[in-house]
Amino acid sequence: MHTISEYQEYFLAYLTKNQINKEPKSLYEPISYILNLGGKRLRPVLVLMTAEMFGGSYKEALDAALAIEVFHNFSLVHDDIMDDAPLRRGKETVHEKWDVNTGILSGDAMLINAYQLFENYEGETFKALAKLFTKTAIEVCEGQQYDVDFETRDDVTIPEYIKMIEYKTAVLVGAAMQMGAVVVGASPEQQYAVYDFGRLLGLAFQLQDDFLDAFGDPKTFGKQLGGDIIENKKTFLYLKAIEHATADEKKQLEGLFSLHPQDATEKVAMVKNLFESTGAKERTREEIKKYTEKAFRVLDELDLSEEGKVMLRAFGENLMNRNV
Amino acid sequence: MHTISEYQEYFLAYLTKNQINKEPKSLYEPISYILNLGGKRLRPVLVLMTAEMFGGSYKEALDAALAIEVFHNFSLVHDDIMDDAPLRRGKETVHEKWDVNTGILSGDAMLINAYQLFENYEGETFKALAKLFTKTAIEVCEGQQYDVDFETRDDVTIPEYIKMIEYKTAVLVGAAMQMGAVVVGASPEQQYAVYDFGRLLGLAFQLQDDFLDAFGDPKTFGKQLGGDIIENKKTFLYLKAIEHATADEKKQLEGLFSLHPQDATEKVAMVKNLFESTGAKERTREEIKKYTEKAFRVLDELDLSEEGKVMLRAFGENLMNRNV
Repeated sequence: MHTISEYQEYFLAYLTKNQINKEPKSLYEPISYILNLGGKRLRPVLVLMTAEMFGGSYKEALDAALAIEVFHNFSLVHDDIMDDAPLRRGKETVHEKWDVNTGILSGDAMLINAYQLFENYEGETFKALAKLFTKTAIEVCEGQQYDVDFETRDDVTIPEYIKMIEYKTAVLVGAAMQMGAVVVGASPEQQYAVYDFGRLLGLAFQLQDDFLDAFGDPKTFGKQLGGDIIENKKTFLYLKAIEHATADEKKQLEGLFSLHPQDATEKVAMVKNLFESTGAKERTREEIKKYTEKAFRVLDELDLSEEGKVMLRAFGENLMNRNV
Repeated sequence: MHTISEYQEYFLAYLTKNQINKEPKSLYEPISYILNLGGKRLRPVLVLMTAEMFGGSYKEALDAALAIEVFHNFSLVHDDIMDDAPLRRGKETVHEKWDVNTGILSGDAMLINAYQLFENYEGETFKALAKLFTKTAIEVCEGQQYDVDFETRDDVTIPEYIKMIEYKTAVLVGAAMQMGAVVVGASPEQQYAVYDFGRLLGLAFQLQDDFLDAFGDPKTFGKQLGGDIIENKKTFLYLKAIEHATADEKKQLEGLFSLHPQDATEKVAMVKNLFESTGAKERTREEIKKYTEKAFRVLDELDLSEEGKVMLRAFGENLMNRNV
């Protein structure tokens, strides 16, 4: 096995080597641009790591890892159009740097290109990867649609919210790991367990994203702190706060979530206080812990070398202790 | 073998049966809407017809036919956003009836759903279909991108234009026919020949679309006559006219193609006169004939029953003698 930063390095080399350099430039340049904006490369690293944990070589998993990263970036390009986001990783989004039409079309080409990468695998492996990918990609679209729908609803329940982040974020983490298992021929039981580990870790990861957006360390948090509060996003923190708020706190919170002040400093501070006083901060922390522990329990049951288990646990703990 | 209207009927029944009726409604309702707007169902009918011509049953080809139709409608939904088109088959486009975000996301889900339909085929057939589909879908994206790029270029050559319509329209007709051949296990030579027949027919079809937009019969032409002229679209007619125009005609044509008059009646009439005086009308007719004859020559060489050949020829002639 290799270290995480080695897997990142192998993946980046493969990404560079597989740049699509053909006509029309106007279709393919935006694709190179978004794929080279950086990021943690979490999903492709998980594909490579899982392949080696089940006794294969990361080299067999490179095309699957690239497919997952291309798909993830496809979803970023289309989501950024939908959210009208100007920046991605601190740089202009594709539809800002070019235009909306370019964003739509380059995104479409990326989604198709992801399938193309699976063609490097033989018959049954190809089918297993394409099927898993299709199921996951459909769920990601459904998750994104739930997220859009939730913006105009004020009766979103916590189970609905969990389902939304499960589809929008967590299933792709699970699928990334399962793909690593598929390409090296792991058993169906192993595949399923590793998918479930990834899915649970993905849920914990997304809940922590919600948590850090409000309570992250301003010194290390990459994005604008309180961004979700400023945009009145009904995250897990908000839904938990509403659930346990007194009548008075509920009124305050709903009032604050109807405002769009020029300077949001005071609003963010007040909302954070309410997240604390209602117990939502603590409950969210517990929920993150709950999913992380569930993931580790799946790991304990998994038929895998001790080295592999130690590595996955370290990866999970590292992810959960991040403050960026 | 069955008649074309029988194939249409079988396809429509299958389409109705396979409606996706799940949550979130906001993602799936627009998909049902666009798939039920009607149209000639040209591509899926070709899939079914080709399967039977090679000795199989149309029933084996229904999933491939549906995949082709779902993909075609995905491209319509995304193209309509890019063209800011209000109407499709006389009804509101998806992004008009809902919004742009719904159009993007429902389109994405349709593209993925097309792949999902191939899962109903076994290992090697699945891979053959998915590979052919991916290659074709990428070309369709490239064709659409060339079309967008051409809008802001005034040095588009005729070979470039032919390549654009080949990618944007013709390859999907070829792929539809090849899929019919693939699902019933036709030989690679037969597959390639039938693909080529479809591709050539698709080219003739698209050139005829250009032709009819200017010279169609107003009594039977479904869309607004002269639409391309009104939008200053550089179609084959325009490029041929420029190629053979006198210096004076060229000036007139370029002048007319820089105008956006409120009432376009006179502009349309003047451009049509120039299409005639430069010989572009006649030359376009010849080009359509050239591709149709090329297609029929491929058909003559094809290892296929006489009944199949007669049917395909009738289909091609019917398509080429249409005035809608």
